[in-house]
Amino acid sequence: MSRPSEFDLIARLFAPLATAPGAFGLKDDVAIIAARAGFDLVVTTDAIVEGVDFFSGDPPAGVAAKALRVNLSDLAAKGAEPAAYLLNLALPRGVDMPWLEDFARGLRDDQARFGITLLGGDTGSTPGPLSVAITAFGHVPQGQMIIRGGARLGDAVFVTGTLGDSGGGLALLKGEAGADLSAGLRAFLIDRYRLPQPPVLFGPALRGIATAAVDVSDGLLADLGHVADASGVRIAVEAARIPISPALAVLWGRDTVSILRAATAGDDYQIAFTAPLSSEAEIAKGAHDTIVTRIGRVESGVGVALLDAAGHEIAVARRGFRHF
Amino acid sequence: MSRPSEFDLIARLFAPLATAPGAFGLKDDVAIIAARAGFDLVVTTDAIVEGVDFFSGDPPAGVAAKALRVNLSDLAAKGAEPAAYLLNLALPRGVDMPWLEDFARGLRDDQARFGITLLGGDTGSTPGPLSVAITAFGHVPQGQMIIRGGARLGDAVFVTGTLGDSGGGLALLKGEAGADLSAGLRAFLIDRYRLPQPPVLFGPALRGIATAAVDVSDGLLADLGHVADASGVRIAVEAARIPISPALAVLWGRDTVSILRAATAGDDYQIAFTAPLSSEAEIAKGAHDTIVTRIGRVESGVGVALLDAAGHEIAVARRGFRHF
Repeated sequence: MSRPSEFDLIARLFAPLATAPGAFGLKDDVAIIAARAGFDLVVTTDAIVEGVDFFSGDPPAGVAAKALRVNLSDLAAKGAEPAAYLLNLALPRGVDMPWLEDFARGLRDDQARFGITLLGGDTGSTPGPLSVAITAFGHVPQGQMIIRGGARLGDAVFVTGTLGDSGGGLALLKGEAGADLSAGLRAFLIDRYRLPQPPVLFGPALRGIATAAVDVSDGLLADLGHVADASGVRIAVEAARIPISPALAVLWGRDTVSILRAATAGDDYQIAFTAPLSSEAEIAKGAHDTIVTRIGRVESGVGVALLDAAGHEIAVARRGFRHF
Repeated sequence: MSRPSEFDLIARLFAPLATAPGAFGLKDDVAIIAARAGFDLVVTTDAIVEGVDFFSGDPPAGVAAKALRVNLSDLAAKGAEPAAYLLNLALPRGVDMPWLEDFARGLRDDQARFGITLLGGDTGSTPGPLSVAITAFGHVPQGQMIIRGGARLGDAVFVTGTLGDSGGGLALLKGEAGADLSAGLRAFLIDRYRLPQPPVLFGPALRGIATAAVDVSDGLLADLGHVADASGVRIAVEAARIPISPALAVLWGRDTVSILRAATAGDDYQIAFTAPLSSEAEIAKGAHDTIVTRIGRVESGVGVALLDAAGHEIAVARRGFRHF
């Protein structure tokens, strides 16, 4: 056999990652999640699939980190501090020990980076593509989770980081564009696709400030649409304010079509949120090295509008990624 | 398109299943798991994959129920009462709305049967087989979870239900045997493969009585092996005491080879546990309509031994299902 049994695999690679007492060293069928007095336990789950969310040749440590981070992104957008996770791994026959060792290293590094620990999981065989489903747990002080439905008329709309970099990286990997891009810019964009950088530390700083928040995974306009729907408001975004990285500006340019593409590409794993305009200074203070950009405002009405410099609405055909 | 978008799918089929306040009607990216004072929160996760754990043509409601029940089985074996679950669904293109509607009906029926509710999840597309991963949450009074490692010298060993029925049903579905079996017995065994019947109510009755427990998913001998390893003991099982259903006895017979097959086939989703012999009457009282059979004893030593009528060890080549 090209790799050991499930039990050996768990003992060798994954048990060392399960340091919480409630994980029982992965020697039981269940785990106990420790309660934290005065805090709500928040849970989220997201899977990534080979050939859909990552490429077959992607570095295994990066696949592990991406699977974790798309979940940590959801926790951050709710103001939660990450604590622990479960791992469901479906492995095709061809996956060998070196791949799995590097994958486990990716988990270990991100555990240290984000202060989280493996609680348990399930490893099995699949005739299909490799898939990694993570269920992540975090804590927020009781009643302080930042919901989607709290945006208020007059609030400003903000977003962290830059948008579209992951979409640009994916386009490069698909060979769609960028043959003349410098190696450095090319590497930056591809890295943003492969390895999300969710603002895990900044999310909790938004508690008590943000009125509503969402992580940008399906695309800025689609995800702000969820906030608008849940809050019963209209969100107006000024196209010219949408933050675009220098690398993406070189790849796609800065015209309206490009900005629209960046605002609908998805896989950004940044936080879009609403907050009173008066809290802008306080937000900047909590941001440390996270870039936060004010991009719009909350109005009465429904849906999301993308506005040009003259305040006219730009027609948007496709607001974000459709899962199928 | 043959089916609606992920968002419509969630709103139409899954949101009605998410009745707990912490599920936010599936309108947020996360859920809050309500704490229960004085109880530990127990979590487990298991996935089932088309072509591995169920067949493509299996009724969708049954696939949903099987995905849930393999997890409820883990909770029951730990003495936990089930409370809620997350659903990760990876859908190939061909899955249509009637399939999904029947799948959701299967979830709804089992929610009512077991008193559980949907908390959240993730639905995505896959180029591979359909897979359903469930993460289930349950409660046990603080510190009362039944662990694997608590078996004590002199304890008796028990198992619920009958063993090997699921393995027999799988053999029938593969056309390996049973061409001359009556339709009724055939249907019974196939149903045991498709629809596990874990003793969800009986599990909690074992708290304070069982010293160690495990759910029988990989096969009786393999799973008792985990208990023996974790407890630092040897477990001796009398082959003649292993409970075999009348249907399986007709299909496979009652000789040693058949009993061994039943004790290693896996997918039983019954509970194997150890307890003082003196608690046998109390166990029977808590069992209601769950069959509980005493099958062996805990001794000093290591591993699991299967004994014949003369007390001699029967050679076992393969103790249970290997995941890969």
